[in-house]
Amino acid sequence: MTSTKPPGGTRDFLPEDVRRREHVVGVIRSVYERYGFEPLETPAFENIETLLGKYGEEGNKLIFKILRRGEHEGTGDVDLALRYDLTVPLARVMAQYRSVLPRFFKRYQIQPVWRADRPARGRFREFYQCDIDAIGSTSPVVEAEILAAVSDVLSTLGFDDFVIRLNHRRLLASLLRASGVPDSLHESALVAIDKRDKIGADGVRAELVTRGISDLAAARCVSVFEGGGGEAAIRAKLLPGDNDGHATLSEILTIMELATAAGAQSMVLDTSLARGLSYYTGAIMEVAVPDLAGSLGGGGRYDNLVGMFLGRDVPACGFSLGMERIIVVMTERGMFPPAVSGVAVDVMIAFMNDDLRADALRLATECRKQRLRVELFPEGGRKLDKALKYAGSRRVPFLAILGEDERAKGEVAIRDLAARHQESVSRAVAPGWMAARVERARTDPGAAGAAPGVQD
Amino acid sequence: MTSTKPPGGTRDFLPEDVRRREHVVGVIRSVYERYGFEPLETPAFENIETLLGKYGEEGNKLIFKILRRGEHEGTGDVDLALRYDLTVPLARVMAQYRSVLPRFFKRYQIQPVWRADRPARGRFREFYQCDIDAIGSTSPVVEAEILAAVSDVLSTLGFDDFVIRLNHRRLLASLLRASGVPDSLHESALVAIDKRDKIGADGVRAELVTRGISDLAAARCVSVFEGGGGEAAIRAKLLPGDNDGHATLSEILTIMELATAAGAQSMVLDTSLARGLSYYTGAIMEVAVPDLAGSLGGGGRYDNLVGMFLGRDVPACGFSLGMERIIVVMTERGMFPPAVSGVAVDVMIAFMNDDLRADALRLATECRKQRLRVELFPEGGRKLDKALKYAGSRRVPFLAILGEDERAKGEVAIRDLAARHQESVSRAVAPGWMAARVERARTDPGAAGAAPGVQD
Repeated sequence: MTSTKPPGGTRDFLPEDVRRREHVVGVIRSVYERYGFEPLETPAFENIETLLGKYGEEGNKLIFKILRRGEHEGTGDVDLALRYDLTVPLARVMAQYRSVLPRFFKRYQIQPVWRADRPARGRFREFYQCDIDAIGSTSPVVEAEILAAVSDVLSTLGFDDFVIRLNHRRLLASLLRASGVPDSLHESALVAIDKRDKIGADGVRAELVTRGISDLAAARCVSVFEGGGGEAAIRAKLLPGDNDGHATLSEILTIMELATAAGAQSMVLDTSLARGLSYYTGAIMEVAVPDLAGSLGGGGRYDNLVGMFLGRDVPACGFSLGMERIIVVMTERGMFPPAVSGVAVDVMIAFMNDDLRADALRLATECRKQRLRVELFPEGGRKLDKALKYAGSRRVPFLAILGEDERAKGEVAIRDLAARHQESVSRAVAPGWMAARVERARTDPGAAGAAPGVQD
Repeated sequence: MTSTKPPGGTRDFLPEDVRRREHVVGVIRSVYERYGFEPLETPAFENIETLLGKYGEEGNKLIFKILRRGEHEGTGDVDLALRYDLTVPLARVMAQYRSVLPRFFKRYQIQPVWRADRPARGRFREFYQCDIDAIGSTSPVVEAEILAAVSDVLSTLGFDDFVIRLNHRRLLASLLRASGVPDSLHESALVAIDKRDKIGADGVRAELVTRGISDLAAARCVSVFEGGGGEAAIRAKLLPGDNDGHATLSEILTIMELATAAGAQSMVLDTSLARGLSYYTGAIMEVAVPDLAGSLGGGGRYDNLVGMFLGRDVPACGFSLGMERIIVVMTERGMFPPAVSGVAVDVMIAFMNDDLRADALRLATECRKQRLRVELFPEGGRKLDKALKYAGSRRVPFLAILGEDERAKGEVAIRDLAARHQESVSRAVAPGWMAARVERARTDPGAAGAAPGVQD
């Protein structure tokens, strides 16, 4: 028999998993919409030439490729590839619909991407990215609003200890130049500097040397990228005549000042922040929490990428949050509101024999009109113990029981499963009676009786 | 330069498209949750052996196949395939998580599927299915609740002219037997009978004969599957000793009676409804509207499919709604509420010079705390005419303008773009002032002044 596990590196999301994800997506969406971002969705696959060459040599290898349909199958010919990130599809969309999109297009996009990585703990082949990008302006208010929006999302989700690190591509270049690293070795040096947390200062210096950087420059590099990011300290590190370096530092400080005005929290200037993707051209940013290795997300300004599709450059700045990492931390910390992991059904209805099925369905309909979530225990016929047990296992707050006696009296027996209490209620008022109790438990979880969503 | 169109048979969803889809998904989700269905999501691809052989010969050809990663790429070796429907992944999930899922598992799943069909008008290679399935019970209340839930979704979306056609696999068999069609030709005969709408009664009769059915049986077939579905008329058509046929007819009538009690609308028994998929074992159903060729969705009972993965049969019944068809009809009929196709931004903020940027961002933050959706016109510096024009093109109801004069007076100039009216408002109360006006326009679109979402 075929394996029934999902493919390696992918996951099935059972109901509680989906509810957690929907909670996060709901917060992200509503916050981003308040910042003027609009939703965009692109197909799961792209023509393969759209993706090839956009993610570097390593990236090319990790793109999932789809066989051309029909007669070509035997040749291994491929024409499509699964979405690898949300930025390249955005650049294609900008080129294709430039004339109908707003001049300053701000979009959010929350969709899965796929990477043919070797599956490992915490490394998936299918995972969701939540991106915002603002296209069309070079103004620093763009960065400020993106930082504020990301900060707002994390605060609204309940994070209070995140730190947003900021840097600027050209400031990195100025500091490398000030350390005596030749321009041709900048990219290589950044790879080493980026490992500081893992291999320590001495490790970085050694690696810089193996990358062809002189002992003197390597030692300077380590000290230049060390320590606090106070403005005066950084200015002192820049070469005296490096006007661009000073202007860039002022630019990133302006962005931080504006982002603070816009409500962004916990920003720090970190001159050692590099971020891998080579398409960044200006400010770069990353957000992290203390108890998670790696970041919750990152972004920056990339003024040239859209031009690869459009034929002329369009300024752009964006930020990508990783949904799985957010969910991992929120789950570990118990940050989800009780309703998210709580019961999915407010009322279960059981009927004692088949003659009462239609009555049970009518009661269910009336309860649903009261916006209650109702499940019918499908098997009638004196199996009340089974219905009770099942309702308990589903953590349903109320079980409504329809029997011949109750019908004769125009009543419904309603059992409060948490309170282990049962009473008979007039059939006519039963739906409203249960709706009122469910609503009370929802708004005041401390009240006596069943409290949907807060039973564990 | 690479083409910037999405791949053939796929679509980019620009903001208004996404909002339409989100509206439909939101209704489907909330209705299905009231019926006790819980969300499930599965990966975009499955191991290829999970899908092969499940959809017939034609289906096999339409499965998108993904190249095995790494060194195997050259050989055309495939190990994964894109999701083709939501039912086979559900059957796999049932087998994998049987012990942790509720005994009566009711799930909804709204995800895209992919088929390597030749793209054509209205035929996509990527499209969304919205499925509900109830696993674990043979009770007819299951069918009744599924029919009521689908009916409720369509009514809530605003459809008032849909018709749900119902039939039963075994009733089809009984009527074919009564017509004199040998059991071995039942499947083949149904293909012909299913074409009645397209080729007429004479066409069906001719095709039945070419499929090896006698002239007499073909003629009987046409008359047996013709005409109204009244109980007496159908009973008269059954063979006298066909107890199973009579019992099946009673069963489907019971389902309709129970579904009516559960609130399902506009059901008709249509003995000619066949539905292609061979895995149905009991009731089959289909829903359509007059102005759309084909159906909006369909489903039925399939008691053997889960067994292909689990090793033992588990009863199941489900219904799949096609999102694209629902959206096509709703768009053509103008059924989307105004807010869905309306403006995405409540307030735009413009600043007259760079010194006012931080003020503008603070104002934006305060407006967002009032739950307004705010966009900053990013380019300051006396470009008020540009900001005005842009706000107009974005159909933003209010433009808040921050200039030096306003700052000196502690005011904000607020322009109502629909009313072409501008007034100065105290800076301190401006966010609340705008929030109140936006809220008023939202709840009373007939009121004077800008009405977000109802301007066109």
